[in-house]
Amino acid sequence: MTELRRDLIMGQWVIVHTQDSWAPERYERESRHRERLSTCQFCPGKEFFTPPEIDAIRPEGSAANAPGWRVRVVPNKFPALRIEGNLDERQEGVYTFFNGIGAHEVLIETPVHDKNLAEFTDEEIAHVISKYQSRFTDLRKDKRFKYIVLFRNYGESAGATVGHPHSQIIALPMVPKYVLQELQGAQKYYEEKGRCVYCDILAQEYSDQERIITENEHFIVFCPFAPRYPFECWIFPKKHNADFSAIDDKERYALGRILKDVLSRMKACLNDPPYNYYCHVSPINSKGEDHEPPWCHGGKLDVSHCFHWHIEIIPKLTRTTGFERGTGFYMVRTDPRMAAGYLRAVSSPNSS
Amino acid sequence: MTELRRDLIMGQWVIVHTQDSWAPERYERESRHRERLSTCQFCPGKEFFTPPEIDAIRPEGSAANAPGWRVRVVPNKFPALRIEGNLDERQEGVYTFFNGIGAHEVLIETPVHDKNLAEFTDEEIAHVISKYQSRFTDLRKDKRFKYIVLFRNYGESAGATVGHPHSQIIALPMVPKYVLQELQGAQKYYEEKGRCVYCDILAQEYSDQERIITENEHFIVFCPFAPRYPFECWIFPKKHNADFSAIDDKERYALGRILKDVLSRMKACLNDPPYNYYCHVSPINSKGEDHEPPWCHGGKLDVSHCFHWHIEIIPKLTRTTGFERGTGFYMVRTDPRMAAGYLRAVSSPNSS
Repeated sequence: MTELRRDLIMGQWVIVHTQDSWAPERYERESRHRERLSTCQFCPGKEFFTPPEIDAIRPEGSAANAPGWRVRVVPNKFPALRIEGNLDERQEGVYTFFNGIGAHEVLIETPVHDKNLAEFTDEEIAHVISKYQSRFTDLRKDKRFKYIVLFRNYGESAGATVGHPHSQIIALPMVPKYVLQELQGAQKYYEEKGRCVYCDILAQEYSDQERIITENEHFIVFCPFAPRYPFECWIFPKKHNADFSAIDDKERYALGRILKDVLSRMKACLNDPPYNYYCHVSPINSKGEDHEPPWCHGGKLDVSHCFHWHIEIIPKLTRTTGFERGTGFYMVRTDPRMAAGYLRAVSSPNSS
Repeated sequence: MTELRRDLIMGQWVIVHTQDSWAPERYERESRHRERLSTCQFCPGKEFFTPPEIDAIRPEGSAANAPGWRVRVVPNKFPALRIEGNLDERQEGVYTFFNGIGAHEVLIETPVHDKNLAEFTDEEIAHVISKYQSRFTDLRKDKRFKYIVLFRNYGESAGATVGHPHSQIIALPMVPKYVLQELQGAQKYYEEKGRCVYCDILAQEYSDQERIITENEHFIVFCPFAPRYPFECWIFPKKHNADFSAIDDKERYALGRILKDVLSRMKACLNDPPYNYYCHVSPINSKGEDHEPPWCHGGKLDVSHCFHWHIEIIPKLTRTTGFERGTGFYMVRTDPRMAAGYLRAVSSPNSS
């Protein structure tokens, strides 16, 4: 038996198998790759292989682009977008395009090649989050950029091409479609109900209890009611907050702990699966620029009332078919209630 | 160097590498699986393994659910949606859902287990298309259904779980998100310009010539200007036509020939890649039902003027990362102009 469920924010439909729901072991996992240590260009001592570092956490007085760092941010050697130049709109007959202006950075999360993010110390993971924040804050000074994407690919079948722990940061001159749809959905809900849709979802999840995996003083993680993927997890700040860059030291540590917690639960429950996670943050450089087209800044959205920044984590357990690719309609073989149950049942370093 | 390109219909952005564009051999291909013949439940003589057939092309007088068929349509043994019951909307707090009503059928395209669709005779592939049409026509009689998805997964990494050549048909009680966005984009363009956006795209492609792969009397195939995936191909009827079910015998054969043509070019050029294709057709059972919510029928869209049915073919050459999953923004390593050039350069049975 299945249910057709509608995502409250984006409006997309998913088919959820609420009976005969698949247990973790029903999913085949593709192997994660581990390239040989000698070839890794992100390891200490190989700093000259990357473009010069943009930022790093290193002992006072240690030289840039030399070993000793704990976290290191470098431009992507093969960037999808380049930072140099003006953003020029062009037209080719009916088609619109821009030159590929943007930023594409790599955040190397640890000097240790095979350290799993789920096994970072609280301080190490807080350092990663603090660099997400400082790159976000730095890149948004560039008025050409309208959105910053923070994301992590883990494992070859989740799109990682390098095994050394790292995240990526891409600054874009327009707000991406999914984010714009989320903002528009959130604004519409706010106009109709006078409340933040994310706050309402959190209230609903607290009331139902069944899809919550764990929580701490500042954050909660749950499996969404209408997921796109099995065992999809969302991390939300408990307090209404549209601005990712504003989280303070306590919240940073709490976020690091809950991220580690859910990743170690996934590792235990789903046999160290490949995964992607990404932050959905507010657009940048958008206020009062009403002359811009809607895909640049989300129109006149005032996101501070209606948007809640958050992290979505997607383990890569299934293959996308022509049905999903062609329709944006998803099929999910595990009821999120069951998924949350499996993830709750395993222990994690933080839950002990 | 890259370009940021905007899809004219859906509005989504893609990053296209217009310099240092990847050639076909730069893509790694995952292996296609071929399960052992003895275990295939779609082969002749194994008809009792599937649910009873719904439709078939078989010699006059031959018994249903017995060998002799050339094309066979059966209900999916593990359906995502079930045909029995009423469609009931339910509410769980803030969330909306329906019971999983719909149809999920499998179209077995040939009795020959390892025949490649690209190597079907003109008559064989026309039979497949005629069954797409007749299932479409039959399923739309059921007023509960608002959309019919016709799609094909080829190869394990494109989501196929059975190696025997087959397509799938899913009837849904709502119009899927991507289709609705396409219809809304097409309607907006029509309102602004007074013309069909697809007809304008075809005119542009004829004028540019560079992204066209091949054409015949009724159909054209080209690589779209802002693709989501490398070597993505779109097959369009040359004549404005919103109704897939209305194509006649001549058009059916022409469609079969161009589908074979592009699939054999992909096979030769990309080393028999896994792929998905799907039809984007008009919604069904939607006219004049203004009391229904927009996700059921596309509001007051009159699609006959502004929509062109078509087929999109996506070879599976890359892995989706957190960037695409999180944003709906795609990165494509091969310029569609180059992709079309590679696909034009190889010979196909039809081009000789």
